[in-house]
Order: sequence, then structure tokens, then C-alpha cells
Amino acid sequence: MIVAIKYPNGQPYHDSTHQPLSKKAADSKPVQHGHRGMSLEQELNRANEFYLQRGIANIHKKPTPIQIVHVDYPKRAAAKITEAYFQQASTTDYNGIYQGHYLDFDAKETNSPTAFPLNNLHQHQVTHLLDTKRLGGISFLIIRFTKYQETYCVPIDAINQFWERRKTERQSIPYQAIVQHGVLIQPSLYPSLPYLEAVDHII
Amino acid sequence: MIVAIKYPNGQPYHDSTHQPLSKKAADSKPVQHGHRGMSLEQELNRANEFYLQRGIANIHKKPTPIQIVHVDYPKRAAAKITEAYFQQASTTDYNGIYQGHYLDFDAKETNSPTAFPLNNLHQHQVTHLLDTKRLGGISFLIIRFTKYQETYCVPIDAINQFWERRKTERQSIPYQAIVQHGVLIQPSLYPSLPYLEAVDHII
Repeated sequence: MIVAIKYPNGQPYHDSTHQPLSKKAADSKPVQHGHRGMSLEQELNRANEFYLQRGIANIHKKPTPIQIVHVDYPKRAAAKITEAYFQQASTTDYNGIYQGHYLDFDAKETNSPTAFPLNNLHQHQVTHLLDTKRLGGISFLIIRFTKYQETYCVPIDAINQFWERRKTERQSIPYQAIVQHGVLIQPSLYPSLPYLEAVDHII
Repeated sequence: MIVAIKYPNGQPYHDSTHQPLSKKAADSKPVQHGHRGMSLEQELNRANEFYLQRGIANIHKKPTPIQIVHVDYPKRAAAKITEAYFQQASTTDYNGIYQGHYLDFDAKETNSPTAFPLNNLHQHQVTHLLDTKRLGGISFLIIRFTKYQETYCVPIDAINQFWERRKTERQSIPYQAIVQHGVLIQPSLYPSLPYLEAVDHII
């Protein structure tokens, strides 16, 4: 069980190390921790904070959809949800705006050194990405091969070629195909995963 | 307490009357219930389902952000969240893509016949809408005067003029100013609130 520390304002505590650095702090000599130990989601959240702060893009991870069944309202304390269930999302996890473009994507990690397994992906995600692309959006997956610490931005059209053939042919996308159709996100110091530089190549 | 009915697939029950009508059903003679009894949120959700189904737009309400503290994993049953708290959102409730445009908005209702009270609005919502507009998005509020059953689409720039003066001048936007700066959403049968017709006038 995780213990939530409640601050006097009744808001849950957020780890302040996850807040964006101030411009001044970012411009001074950064601590070189790279992205060691950070999950793909953490790196994307930090990149999004960076882009938001600099006025470059406004992209957010959507909250997990939850069906709330019962809430307690104690006196002098925050409302407490005591019964709730996870729901299936109907969209992807990330969307927002970048240089006038609507962006939509999901982020996936695999331990496999040879291929991205398509059971990591769901039909509703593929459908949503194809639909937003058809409407003029930039739709893609961010796929990380953890073995290589390589992260690619892969357009939904390339993904879909393999997705459509998954029942008759192979149920994964070979690493080499990701390298060929995707754009490698070059790591940097801050943010550690400047993924919009890769997105620039698929706009 | 609301009782959640669990179906055999382990998914929470969804009221099927909230599902979009099939194209056939929609084209045949509709039941004229208008929007009586429906909240603004319900009407927007139905409009978004309609637009998604017809391939016109892909716009969704974001889930409420919740901090999960404790989850039970019973055998042969869905994971049950037993302790969680509401979090403050950092964005607005709705975003998506329409005709290549990034759309971002929040929906508000007021019982006042004379003005929209600005305490209905939060700084982070205004900031987010101004920011997404600056990046090239279409950013607005949907404001309903329940007394008149009138719903307006109001660009964020018009809202912000009043927002910036709220501490020195009036703390609300007069009804007449909403009528002047906003676009009235003409109700229809299906969807009952075709708000993208109003959005067309502010693109």
C-alpha cells in the first residue's frame, strides 16, 4: 500500500522533483542523470512539461478512466473514493497541439530485442489513431526497445500495415522495420526525450 | 450509493441508451425528446459520439484525474480501487480534432438570467485555453444559460477580456456580452446540440 501524504490544502502531495526546472535552473549546468531509471511515461511527462513551459507545444497524458461507485465525504478532509473500477479507454493516452497540428499518440515499451509484439496494441488504439490522422492529425506510436534504450516515433500508417496482417502473417513488427519506418528520438540532457524533434520528420 | 452492475465480461455496465444510434436508426424518424432532461455534458457527449460515428470530428471528454492510493485484486473479479482522491485537472475537459483543427474547450452552465459568473471558471482553464489558441488551436467555452435553454460558443479572447478585469470591475460576463461575442448553438433533433456548426463561425 502506498501512503498518501495530505498537505494542509487538502491536495494530494506531488513529488516536486517531477516539476519542470525553472528556466534559470535549466540554463545553468544541468545534473547529468540522463534518463537512467526513468520510465518512458516519466520521460514523456517531463518532455511535455518542458514544451509547455517554453510555449512550444501543449500536450498532456489523459487520466486513466475510472468508474466511481462510492465516495465518502468526511468532515474537514478531502472526499475519499472508496469503491471504483478501471475502465477501458476509448482513445490513446496522449494528445495536444504542436505548431498548429493536432498530435495524437500512445507510448509502448518492449523488452524484446527483435520485434515489437502487436499484442501490446489494441484495436481501439489503432482505430483512434487512423481516425485522427484521416481528420488531419499527426498520429503515431512512440515505441521503446528497452534492451537498446532506443525510442522511435512510428507513424500510424506504418504500424497499420503490420496490424492488418497480424492474423495471417506475423504478430509483431520486426525491429528492422521499426528502424526503417520510424524516426529515432535522439536523447538529450533536458528534456531527456525531445520527441518533437522526431515528430518534425513525420509532419 | 450507486450499485455497479458487473456483466460477465468483467466490464462495468454502460447505459446503452447513451450509445450513438446506428446510421439507419438516426435516418429513420427520430423520437422527439429534444434535450429535455439532458445535462450539457450529456448533450456534448452525444454530439461527440455522433461526430465520431460520421467521421466529422474526433473529440472526447477527458476522464477526471484521480490519485489512486490502494487497489484490491480479488480472484476472479475486476481490480477494485478502495482508496483514491480527486485531483485538480491542469487542462480543460474537452479536446480533439475537427477538420484539421485542434479544438479545446470547457463547458459551463449557469442559472443566472443576467450574467455568467466568473467564479465558474479557474485560472488554469483560462491559461490553458489562451495557450492552445496561441499555438494555433480553436479555444472556447460553451456556456449555457439554463433559464433560457440557450447555449453559446464563446471564443477565449472574448472571455479573457472580462477575466482580466474581474478583480477591478465586474466579476461576471453580462448575458448581452455573451450574445454579442458568442455564437448561439441552434438546437436540432440529432444531435440535440450540434455545437460544431457554431464552432464553424469562430474558425
